[in-house]
Amino acid sequence: MASLESRKIGILGGGQLGRMAQEAASRLNISLTILDQPVDAPAKQINAIQPHIQGAFTDADKIRELANSVDVITVEIEHVDTAVLFELEKQGKEIHPTPGTIHLIQDKYEQKVHLAKHGIPMADALDCPDDASIQDAGQRFGFPFMLKSKTGAYDGRGNYVVRSSKDVADARSHLAPGAPLYAEKWAKFDRELAVMVVRSVTGEVQSYPVVETVHKNSICHLVFAPAQVGRGLTGTKDATFAHSIAERARKVAEDAVASLAGAGVFGVEMFLMDNGEILLNEIAPRPHNSGHYTIEACHTSQYENHLRAILGLPLGSTAMKVPAAGMLNILGNGDRTYLACEMAYSIAGATTHLYGKKECKQGRKMGHITVVGDSMQQVHSRLLPMVCALDPADQSPWNLDPLVSIVMGSDSDLKVMEAAAQVLTKIGVPFELSLVSAHRTPERMYHFGRMAHKRGVKVIIAGAGGAAHLPGMVAALTPLPVIGVPVRGSVLDGVDSLHSIVQMPRGVPVATVAINNSTNAALLAVRILGSSDPAYLEKMTVFMEEQEKEVLAKIDNLDEVGWANYEVKKH
Amino acid sequence: MASLESRKIGILGGGQLGRMAQEAASRLNISLTILDQPVDAPAKQINAIQPHIQGAFTDADKIRELANSVDVITVEIEHVDTAVLFELEKQGKEIHPTPGTIHLIQDKYEQKVHLAKHGIPMADALDCPDDASIQDAGQRFGFPFMLKSKTGAYDGRGNYVVRSSKDVADARSHLAPGAPLYAEKWAKFDRELAVMVVRSVTGEVQSYPVVETVHKNSICHLVFAPAQVGRGLTGTKDATFAHSIAERARKVAEDAVASLAGAGVFGVEMFLMDNGEILLNEIAPRPHNSGHYTIEACHTSQYENHLRAILGLPLGSTAMKVPAAGMLNILGNGDRTYLACEMAYSIAGATTHLYGKKECKQGRKMGHITVVGDSMQQVHSRLLPMVCALDPADQSPWNLDPLVSIVMGSDSDLKVMEAAAQVLTKIGVPFELSLVSAHRTPERMYHFGRMAHKRGVKVIIAGAGGAAHLPGMVAALTPLPVIGVPVRGSVLDGVDSLHSIVQMPRGVPVATVAINNSTNAALLAVRILGSSDPAYLEKMTVFMEEQEKEVLAKIDNLDEVGWANYEVKKH
Repeated sequence: MASLESRKIGILGGGQLGRMAQEAASRLNISLTILDQPVDAPAKQINAIQPHIQGAFTDADKIRELANSVDVITVEIEHVDTAVLFELEKQGKEIHPTPGTIHLIQDKYEQKVHLAKHGIPMADALDCPDDASIQDAGQRFGFPFMLKSKTGAYDGRGNYVVRSSKDVADARSHLAPGAPLYAEKWAKFDRELAVMVVRSVTGEVQSYPVVETVHKNSICHLVFAPAQVGRGLTGTKDATFAHSIAERARKVAEDAVASLAGAGVFGVEMFLMDNGEILLNEIAPRPHNSGHYTIEACHTSQYENHLRAILGLPLGSTAMKVPAAGMLNILGNGDRTYLACEMAYSIAGATTHLYGKKECKQGRKMGHITVVGDSMQQVHSRLLPMVCALDPADQSPWNLDPLVSIVMGSDSDLKVMEAAAQVLTKIGVPFELSLVSAHRTPERMYHFGRMAHKRGVKVIIAGAGGAAHLPGMVAALTPLPVIGVPVRGSVLDGVDSLHSIVQMPRGVPVATVAINNSTNAALLAVRILGSSDPAYLEKMTVFMEEQEKEVLAKIDNLDEVGWANYEVKKH
Repeated sequence: MASLESRKIGILGGGQLGRMAQEAASRLNISLTILDQPVDAPAKQINAIQPHIQGAFTDADKIRELANSVDVITVEIEHVDTAVLFELEKQGKEIHPTPGTIHLIQDKYEQKVHLAKHGIPMADALDCPDDASIQDAGQRFGFPFMLKSKTGAYDGRGNYVVRSSKDVADARSHLAPGAPLYAEKWAKFDRELAVMVVRSVTGEVQSYPVVETVHKNSICHLVFAPAQVGRGLTGTKDATFAHSIAERARKVAEDAVASLAGAGVFGVEMFLMDNGEILLNEIAPRPHNSGHYTIEACHTSQYENHLRAILGLPLGSTAMKVPAAGMLNILGNGDRTYLACEMAYSIAGATTHLYGKKECKQGRKMGHITVVGDSMQQVHSRLLPMVCALDPADQSPWNLDPLVSIVMGSDSDLKVMEAAAQVLTKIGVPFELSLVSAHRTPERMYHFGRMAHKRGVKVIIAGAGGAAHLPGMVAALTPLPVIGVPVRGSVLDGVDSLHSIVQMPRGVPVATVAINNSTNAALLAVRILGSSDPAYLEKMTVFMEEQEKEVLAKIDNLDEVGWANYEVKKH
């Protein structure tokens, strides 16, 4: 009986990335043979159906032995012997990504030269064959700048911060002696982003959502997906960006991977600069720590997509199946190593992955925890206790995109609209508030309307008085629900605004609330969020119960003091 | 270095349920030792870190051998030797579920007697030790009725439909000769439901969402989660049910499992009768086919929760992390076995699980495909091509809960409100439409408002004229967003209705649209759905583009024919 897939894969390396690839392979009955030194390497532990190969993934003979028993070769680590891979490629062996790509990526400077040729934005770099050229880099880039080993670097190793011209000797001795070096201009970034890209054998590329990565001691600590990069793009100045930050980051990552050869998954790390610019940092030619979240949070995990890509199968959807996810790495830390995992048992949406590593060295990647949620806010609240338990100092507030955007035509509307902000603050909804005038800032309004849903906004509240065009005009520009608040002016009691806002033509609805009642606009926004997010549905239910209790208390009071003595409290 | 969990589990049976339990165990570095006959049983294939035991899970000696090497024993199948389990239990071995529970469940009649004592609703049954009692069953239950083997039955085997008193001899010979039998009243059910329940060592029970199961030749074919049982509960008559069908089904399942001893996951199969009643069919004391979907669709899979339960760890959240999921079993079918799996590669949200079974017998469970989606509608559209490819006749429309509920105070409002129904039909939103009058059917309105969100409704559209209390009163009863459509009456041009609907007091918002403009109410409902469901956001974007194109075409026409010859087309 034919199975679904009969071709065999061989993989260089059997660590945690190989282990998670093995999980995906088992589910599809795909045969994976693992080359790694330990008999009980993490990946080998969960594959009992064929003999693996015991040896270093840098050992040419072992690689040849592996090649003899499989149809396709891939890697879970880029620090492999490419000479033998080139040799095997010449003999017609299928290897993904290609030895050329692995070789290029092994040299971070060559990688940069290649990507620069393809127009990928990166921090300026300079080859540093000698001390003079390092001093030259200081002249050109200013201090501090980064001095980096071209090869063999990972998790921050092989990097040195040169703070003044006196540091050069130190830098030389700190980095591997004799290692080829290059200098890189200091990237004063706002945040670090990453995108996993999968490339098919025919060169088609498809990217996963942009994530934010948080490093600690140069090792990946936290990942948030999708990256919360939507706040504060409502200004006319920012609107010069025709695309959102997330769209631009995906484009950079896809273009970079499209420039390489061979199939598989690639991890692309980037910097988001203060001015909104995206600079590529480096590429890993394999599944990556910043893509672990895809197992629980995306339609097809990076591991399954890597297998599909190298076998020439259709690529799986890279879309997220949950609204938000976070990932926390579990690093070796003595008795405290599994503290977060123990807590994770009681946290909804948390899934623990342990890698089966026998020895628990300090700082070693022992596992990770992925947390999913109905909103990034929920993901934060689920992650926070674990992160704080590991390090109480680690409480920096994480980024959160606004779900509701409150806009108004004039600052004179703020006295009416601030009630909406108060309600959202009290209920705990992330929101933004700004001025957008249909008549005085039409360009800003246009970009605001067109971009809102791309920034993660779910509901727009627009307040306006008099002719009150803002809610309807924004509704004409966005596919999102727009709530209109008629603001009462000095004449006509607000009926002018009400009719302007509510009497929209067929085709473009505005959800209109009572005159001056921005409280209800905010509550309606919460109801809209709650129609898909159970946490907000619950918050609305609690709000309604409290509202009922308040009135019931007034009834008790009225019964107690009698109607004649009853005093009506002001709102 | 201490690991997260050091206790060892032994499992009787190494089939696909054991394999998926093994997957969960590997992720937590929990040691699982498998007792089953084949050296390469599905579960054994993915565990290379300890020796397994080769032997039948009905072999007492082998079970004792397993017991000697582990801390806790569990099962992936209930047809095991309970005598030795009782013996081991007496010696103090931890066994989950308890041998008593497994023994009780092995006898389906005893199971029913036990559950009946605990007040669980079931079809009437009668012990049938002889032919006379079988004839007696025909008298009491009428024909047809079910004759069932008390023991050893699964996937429809051991059941016989007795259509007349003449069938009795046939039934006897068809069922295993000498097997103890019982008769069961024919359950003319509308649908079959199932609930996975997890029971902790302390007896705490927690249930997964209710799913709908579709059987084919008595074997599980499809599963839909959550079960779409929310339609048509808006009538006063139905409102006599204080709880939704889903709430009642979960309660029956939880109560049934609470009456049993021992920890672990239990699969509870139920019938939903035409009159809305829930009858329990039978219980499996282990992970179950109807719970496979939990791997991709829930926070904690049934497999991980089974492990957690038997180890006395905190139970994981049973909530779904995606809005909807479906599952299709892959049964052995010669060359066509993997047809659906091949298609699944190109279907977003589809995940294939193959069980590593070497031999592909006709009808054997070889794997399954889980499909997740942002709505049940999307899950249907993703599943349909695979189901039809396997069997083109298999196109029965599956059940779909309404996402939008359109209600109006009077049938005279229908001429205004039907435009909303037309828009939702055109855009493809599942909806319901009915009459709910605040003034004439206040009880119906109360139940409608309180139950809507429990039936899966996401948005309510309420149309009303004159005093127009319906939208506001419904908004006071539901936490969902309510869209109000002011219907123009014979006087006051609809301004009376508009003001009644829009001028709601602080605390209870109604999203009001223009007078008589139910088209915009429907479009607003789609925007609300689209704020969380990308498919609807896309549909709204397309709608807006088409609307723009229509106007641009009119502009071309106006330019062409000139203003003097231009005829305004009526809507």
